[in-house]
Amino acid sequence: MLVLGIDPGTALTGYALVRQEDGEPELVVAGVIRTASDEALAVRLQAIYAGVTQLAAEYRPEAAAVEEVFFSRNARTALAVGHARGVVLLALADAGLPVAEYKPPVVKQSVTGYGGADKAQVQEMVRLLLRLEDILRPDDAADAAAIALCHLQHRRFDGAVQRAGEGS
Amino acid sequence: MLVLGIDPGTALTGYALVRQEDGEPELVVAGVIRTASDEALAVRLQAIYAGVTQLAAEYRPEAAAVEEVFFSRNARTALAVGHARGVVLLALADAGLPVAEYKPPVVKQSVTGYGGADKAQVQEMVRLLLRLEDILRPDDAADAAAIALCHLQHRRFDGAVQRAGEGS
Repeated sequence: MLVLGIDPGTALTGYALVRQEDGEPELVVAGVIRTASDEALAVRLQAIYAGVTQLAAEYRPEAAAVEEVFFSRNARTALAVGHARGVVLLALADAGLPVAEYKPPVVKQSVTGYGGADKAQVQEMVRLLLRLEDILRPDDAADAAAIALCHLQHRRFDGAVQRAGEGS
Repeated sequence: MLVLGIDPGTALTGYALVRQEDGEPELVVAGVIRTASDEALAVRLQAIYAGVTQLAAEYRPEAAAVEEVFFSRNARTALAVGHARGVVLLALADAGLPVAEYKPPVVKQSVTGYGGADKAQVQEMVRLLLRLEDILRPDDAADAAAIALCHLQHRRFDGAVQRAGEGS
């Protein structure tokens, strides 16, 4: 299965495409959709929509995963993330992709085994799990990869539960 | 000039088309784009995008105006508004409309003459300015009309300043 993980933001939207069939997860590509801070917000949102749409068309992932926003952030940050996140969810839905959402502690737990892991620990575990020489940069790309890995793990788990149910 | 005012929200997105040429402002249509709370967020955002796009295509406004979000709201509300607002801004930009943004006190000042006016005062002044028998309902439609009226007033003011500059 090929999963598109996305970490939305108005300035930088991280993305990572991670594939896992029977073996280990493998990074296909990761990066950021970068928007110009001197552009109008609406134009930046158009760039994010176009970027996500292009990723979906080019790589044809079977599913997408996005982080649920952490509500302890302040209202201004939440609004800015909301703008980008709304457009990302729209682009993914328009591309016909099922979208899973995971809370940050679930992503951390899934990748590092500890829901309270810090950013550096998550980045290092993403590097190890994907067998990369260096950690993914910028942070937003590493976060997107962590979200994709989280989704692949939950999919595996769901699959196991389903098979167990069918066998009983 | 025909202006599309929008008050974005994930459940209800208010809209109002207000026309003003040389005389008094006139309400063309107002209402809400309503989304189902049992639908996935991405599907609701698709409905908002489609609704705004349809309004732009059907009425061909020359400009749009959206309220800037008030930052004293909590982070959860700001995020939810952000989702809808991002999609509205995207739809307006995709429709080729210039978008003006006004802070709530500016909208209130513009419509009632007082930046600290309450919701009922704004609704009543919208009713009077547009010469309606009753206040617009739901609130979101009245708020959208207030934003459109605010933009028309600022446009008039900008025009006057420009003409004065040209004449000196």
